[in-house]
Amino acid sequence: MIPPLAVAMGDPAGVGPEIVAKAWMARGVHSLTPFFVVGDMQAISAVWDGPVAAIDRPQEAAAVFATALPILTVHNSGNTVPGKPDTEGARCALQSLETAVGLTRSGAAGALITGPVSKARLYDIGFTHPGQTEFVAERCGVSRDNAVMMLAGPTLRVVPITTHVPLASVHDLLTTELVAAKGRATARGLIRNFGISRPRLAFAGFNPHAGESGAIGQEEIDVIAPAIARLRDEGIDATGPFAADTMFHPRARANFDAALCPYHDQALIPIKTLHFDEGVNMTLGLPIVRTSPDHGTAFGIAGTNQAEPGAMIAALRLAASAAERRSEALASRDK
Amino acid sequence: MIPPLAVAMGDPAGVGPEIVAKAWMARGVHSLTPFFVVGDMQAISAVWDGPVAAIDRPQEAAAVFATALPILTVHNSGNTVPGKPDTEGARCALQSLETAVGLTRSGAAGALITGPVSKARLYDIGFTHPGQTEFVAERCGVSRDNAVMMLAGPTLRVVPITTHVPLASVHDLLTTELVAAKGRATARGLIRNFGISRPRLAFAGFNPHAGESGAIGQEEIDVIAPAIARLRDEGIDATGPFAADTMFHPRARANFDAALCPYHDQALIPIKTLHFDEGVNMTLGLPIVRTSPDHGTAFGIAGTNQAEPGAMIAALRLAASAAERRSEALASRDK
Repeated sequence: MIPPLAVAMGDPAGVGPEIVAKAWMARGVHSLTPFFVVGDMQAISAVWDGPVAAIDRPQEAAAVFATALPILTVHNSGNTVPGKPDTEGARCALQSLETAVGLTRSGAAGALITGPVSKARLYDIGFTHPGQTEFVAERCGVSRDNAVMMLAGPTLRVVPITTHVPLASVHDLLTTELVAAKGRATARGLIRNFGISRPRLAFAGFNPHAGESGAIGQEEIDVIAPAIARLRDEGIDATGPFAADTMFHPRARANFDAALCPYHDQALIPIKTLHFDEGVNMTLGLPIVRTSPDHGTAFGIAGTNQAEPGAMIAALRLAASAAERRSEALASRDK
Repeated sequence: MIPPLAVAMGDPAGVGPEIVAKAWMARGVHSLTPFFVVGDMQAISAVWDGPVAAIDRPQEAAAVFATALPILTVHNSGNTVPGKPDTEGARCALQSLETAVGLTRSGAAGALITGPVSKARLYDIGFTHPGQTEFVAERCGVSRDNAVMMLAGPTLRVVPITTHVPLASVHDLLTTELVAAKGRATARGLIRNFGISRPRLAFAGFNPHAGESGAIGQEEIDVIAPAIARLRDEGIDATGPFAADTMFHPRARANFDAALCPYHDQALIPIKTLHFDEGVNMTLGLPIVRTSPDHGTAFGIAGTNQAEPGAMIAALRLAASAAERRSEALASRDK
């Protein structure tokens, strides 16, 4: 039995409060592991009139979860209005994230699920990380190259090797060391979080048609193939580089457990094309389990009861199954 | 009533002969417009024992189409074996293409459908074009910038603004003039070939998240947005630039008739993820209708009766409907 999961509420002006409340309503249908919100009671009440229960410690969540949504208030977001992000809301989001990470690191929470935040608003209050993933990695003492962003849907898992950088800079960022590091962390993550004993990693090429043996680009020959060779030498089932456009149809997807892509859109286009409403972002390589719904704050529809909780529910389910798997692995190691 | 369609057989060692024969067998189910193969009788007979009819002129095709696959032999491929591409096979493929283009240009054939070829083998015999599309464009007297490669499937149409070039060179190739030219040709092509009176064009950004207002890249601000503005000034319904990863889920696809993407994989990943077995490549901006199945020679399975004719059938159907539409538009203009 793992401890309750900690959900950092995200920006109170976004859809975070609504989707976490809707996920709680679906707790029975989806057999959700008990969780609690780290954030602000008022932000939830502003968009939802279901039962809530104020808690002071994670340990209180499981007892009330059946009848009310447990909320650990860490910062009163004041008068933040749904759809209108402001500075107090950003402070609430950051404090929620900080506390939820700490509770998960300490073991009081079984896993961390982070709601959507506005990076622009966080930057306004002095946040200096590119995103929540890097913040969580730093709080866990893990370097950026070893923390891996994986997007997972029902039929596909992808890892962008580089993320939110100008496309023209990817050529310089893409090194054999980086590609191999991401491959290693992905393989380990698939074993630990998904129970895949021998993960199959498929690497996409950088150029169209994976460069056609150097005819349209050299990155495959100079960087990606050597990284794959290194991983294979280490005993990891790594293949490629493959033409990215033919990697994601159903028959091709059956050949790998995760696709690793040199840049953002190569990885994000197929997962969002196939699994837009149910994609989960999972950070691999951390000492804790961390997932988040793969969508933004959607300020445009916040407070209008239109937000779909599917991705949040998927994030909760994936976090719970990964945390249980890791807990069992630890228990059997201790025997 | 349009003239019969000309199918350039493609490489005789590839799956071209098999898929065109299988498409003919499905002529009733799919109500296919009569077509004829331009190529080599022997290559068809090597992989298929159905009825064939040698013809000397396109005009003879319609009369025999109901009972036999009409074939106009232009070059005997000799002893080419399925799965083993050779020089004679490449000569046959090139001669088939040349003749089929000429027959379509002359009006004897209603549209051109090109089977899959091996570029490497064509280069061996002196072919100097990047691909069949550029060859056809030149034979039609159309410059490369004005010929547009569109991939079309049942729920999505995409246009790569640049194609088979190293990804690192796209930044330099991407100019406002090029983006606007591709937009214009796409809009015209959607009107002429698909009967869409006011086509909605959606442009993808170049960088992740379409550059986030310049935070991660400038190509959107410097190149793509000005091209969109120019197209709008010309009365074309052009929107964007949008984050490429959120353009291709079902709700997003409903907002445009074609997505134009700065580089190959941005356009090809979503279409092949969704419509791998039924994608059609259509060249817009030509005086003739030209389509092709969006797959390669598949030498590995040639001659084993495993090739799926779905994309060839889709290419035949799309070519016929576009040719009929253009023919009707000409007829009504002449009234």
